[in-house]
Amino acid sequence: MNSFLLSLDVLDALKNIVGENRVKTDADSLENWGKDHTKYFAPHASAIVFPSSTEQVQAIVKLANHHAVALTPSGGRTGLSAGAVAHNGEIVISLDKMNQILEFFPADRMVRIQAGVVTEQLQDYAQEQGMYYPVDFASAGSSQLGGNIATNAGGIKVIKYGMTRNWILGLTVVTGKGDILRLNKGMIKNATGYALHHLFIGGEGTLGIVTEVEIRLDRQPQDLQVLVLGVPDFESVMPIMHAFRKEIDLTAFEFFNDLAMQKVLDHGLVQRPFETSCPFYVLLEFEAPYEPVIDKAMQIFEHCIEQGWVLDGVMSQSLEQAQNLWRLREDISESISAFTPYKNDISVLITHVPDFIAEIDSIVANNYPDFETCWFGHIGDGNLHLNILKPANLSNEDFFAKCEIVNSYVFEVVNKFDGSISAEHGVGMTKKPYLEFSRSEQEIEYMKALKKVFDPNLIMNPGKLLDF
Amino acid sequence: MNSFLLSLDVLDALKNIVGENRVKTDADSLENWGKDHTKYFAPHASAIVFPSSTEQVQAIVKLANHHAVALTPSGGRTGLSAGAVAHNGEIVISLDKMNQILEFFPADRMVRIQAGVVTEQLQDYAQEQGMYYPVDFASAGSSQLGGNIATNAGGIKVIKYGMTRNWILGLTVVTGKGDILRLNKGMIKNATGYALHHLFIGGEGTLGIVTEVEIRLDRQPQDLQVLVLGVPDFESVMPIMHAFRKEIDLTAFEFFNDLAMQKVLDHGLVQRPFETSCPFYVLLEFEAPYEPVIDKAMQIFEHCIEQGWVLDGVMSQSLEQAQNLWRLREDISESISAFTPYKNDISVLITHVPDFIAEIDSIVANNYPDFETCWFGHIGDGNLHLNILKPANLSNEDFFAKCEIVNSYVFEVVNKFDGSISAEHGVGMTKKPYLEFSRSEQEIEYMKALKKVFDPNLIMNPGKLLDF
Repeated sequence: MNSFLLSLDVLDALKNIVGENRVKTDADSLENWGKDHTKYFAPHASAIVFPSSTEQVQAIVKLANHHAVALTPSGGRTGLSAGAVAHNGEIVISLDKMNQILEFFPADRMVRIQAGVVTEQLQDYAQEQGMYYPVDFASAGSSQLGGNIATNAGGIKVIKYGMTRNWILGLTVVTGKGDILRLNKGMIKNATGYALHHLFIGGEGTLGIVTEVEIRLDRQPQDLQVLVLGVPDFESVMPIMHAFRKEIDLTAFEFFNDLAMQKVLDHGLVQRPFETSCPFYVLLEFEAPYEPVIDKAMQIFEHCIEQGWVLDGVMSQSLEQAQNLWRLREDISESISAFTPYKNDISVLITHVPDFIAEIDSIVANNYPDFETCWFGHIGDGNLHLNILKPANLSNEDFFAKCEIVNSYVFEVVNKFDGSISAEHGVGMTKKPYLEFSRSEQEIEYMKALKKVFDPNLIMNPGKLLDF
Repeated sequence: MNSFLLSLDVLDALKNIVGENRVKTDADSLENWGKDHTKYFAPHASAIVFPSSTEQVQAIVKLANHHAVALTPSGGRTGLSAGAVAHNGEIVISLDKMNQILEFFPADRMVRIQAGVVTEQLQDYAQEQGMYYPVDFASAGSSQLGGNIATNAGGIKVIKYGMTRNWILGLTVVTGKGDILRLNKGMIKNATGYALHHLFIGGEGTLGIVTEVEIRLDRQPQDLQVLVLGVPDFESVMPIMHAFRKEIDLTAFEFFNDLAMQKVLDHGLVQRPFETSCPFYVLLEFEAPYEPVIDKAMQIFEHCIEQGWVLDGVMSQSLEQAQNLWRLREDISESISAFTPYKNDISVLITHVPDFIAEIDSIVANNYPDFETCWFGHIGDGNLHLNILKPANLSNEDFFAKCEIVNSYVFEVVNKFDGSISAEHGVGMTKKPYLEFSRSEQEIEYMKALKKVFDPNLIMNPGKLLDF
């Protein structure tokens, strides 16, 4: 670790900015705040700093420019692409102490917060105001808004509510150069030139650090109903979605295959929703504040049965049942974690999903007939989570080596269908070698040029997203 | 006009690219395609070209770089900020011949179009597919999607559907450098680095030209109901909006003052909605596919009456009545056009709207007691149209001179409330001198640096938005 020691000058200057007790260099802290949820890259941070204001962040960034030291912005460290791993001696700027909710604007349905606010904290605050923050996903209990913004987080309600981007009305950022910019200032309508805040959303902390956020809230959803349907083949999934969406605004449309269901049932915490075993399942959710909506849903359900698209199904009769049905989908990741799953987070146009899945399945079946493939995902927005499970008789090493080969096949198919190699997890370090499968060489050159505009000394999260 | 003559080399090269009959240099064409809906800047185009493909646009841009000739991208020419006026001998690239709807993706609720498609053409096409394109405004009959994207057009349904930005899933652009980029390719979820397409949305054609668009459609609205309410004072407008939005998803929430209503009635094409004359009016629209929604709306209406927020009101009983109620709002611009209105298109947080209006009213009343002020706008998103009417006894010249003074007062108040000097019309040339009232000096420097990344020779719509 000696190679990553900071000079005493820099350490003293950091302490001057944030205070003695807000700079950590002990081994435990360097390990803890030096990494995110990925495990492929070892953390090697040189220090962890905990600023409490935008001005302190600015002072740190200016210091880093002056001394040519790299910075890694850090939020809830739940990322899955190593976008917040300090791998090369970076100073980690943790937003943990910038977790204040600053001001609520009821007429605007908007709240101004510091970027270190945790997703669930925002969700709870919204609820206390009789409002709702709809971007939701498994790590909501620890992910921070700044990190959600850096990766444009999605999750399980995108079909109705869109991505994080859709809820951002303004950002305060410190650029890599050390300028404080207040971008868009909470306005819905503002046609005064380039929408700079949209570069920082999904920018993975490589252009600057988001310190404050103006974020939109929505009214609370009313009387959510959940349906789980068993489906005979993948070709039936799309007509089901189409039939429901034509009449009812869905708040979620998720799918998973039989293997995923089986693993959740084996896990032993939830029960089978109905007796019939089916190759695929879909989960639908929608608001039903009026009785006729339920009637309509039942009519569509019966129509789907008649058409042969649905073999069996169940609708929640209570909030508890609704929550249990959701667990069939939400517990998948946990239920398969013992099988060392090899994960991919990809998206294509919904139109292409059936062909895409068939092609990947056939590649895996032909090359690795002993591999089990767990498919699930947010099919209502073309986002698929492909999880290949490790056969028990294969070593981790051999399994990962084979999966690396599968990886390039998968990304070639993604490329063929004009899809995305990372739908919602970001690029970070893990997907960086594959960026060209989703972005053209020219696009990447423009991205590099933009990076240099905001961060000319390349001190801001270097090595993530782009190589120089 | 001689100073704007192109060399014969350039003219021949243009004809080689698009064909002899797709290059116009006659005086009528130069006048017609050389301007948009503004009248403050005289058109001085050197040629008008009508490409039919992205590749032809690319060839023109490369030619322009080679010969250092400036280009002005041109759509439906309905802009109100002189963003599409060829004022200094530019070659106008008209998208008029790129008006094809290319492909419909029902499962994705998406359509791929050329950027010269007219808004109404897209709306009609959507309707034929049983779908809906919700961005709507007065000039929908002639504005083109490329232009809507360049200014991030808003309009009357933003409270529910958002701005044009919200519907864009992908853009094909030719950058100022002459590169063709296919950005985001129609995906809902794509976390692979900087969202370059969001720079071109609202970029006013200064970074490049949008040639093709992947655009999202929505389901058709069901059983729209319209309410017009008379309000005793501006302070009551916000509680009304709050009371309705808490229970019902509004598709519009517009407001106008008594003077605006009076001018529309004087115009003689629509009737007074109810007898009571009120200082302010609001128009609400919402979907009511189920009877209980109407009941709920009536309950809220009665509550508003009891609270003294509403003096009188009417709800549409038929589609025709709904359309007539809408005309009370939509006919304002036409009804006041004879009074040479001095227009401003501004936005602030909804929270600040009451104080903002009071402050502007008091400035105008104190300084120009003989001026009449017509307020209307999309109050549900903080967007106000301030129209000052010319007193009959004042010459145009004197009136405009006085309004110029009002202008700087207005923008100082906008600045004080952290608002936008252009909510939906863009900056172009008319608002360029005032950009600093909404964007900081540093932001403007970053915008200039971004411009140079995409358009290093500054050939793309120069003189609009930014000065170099």
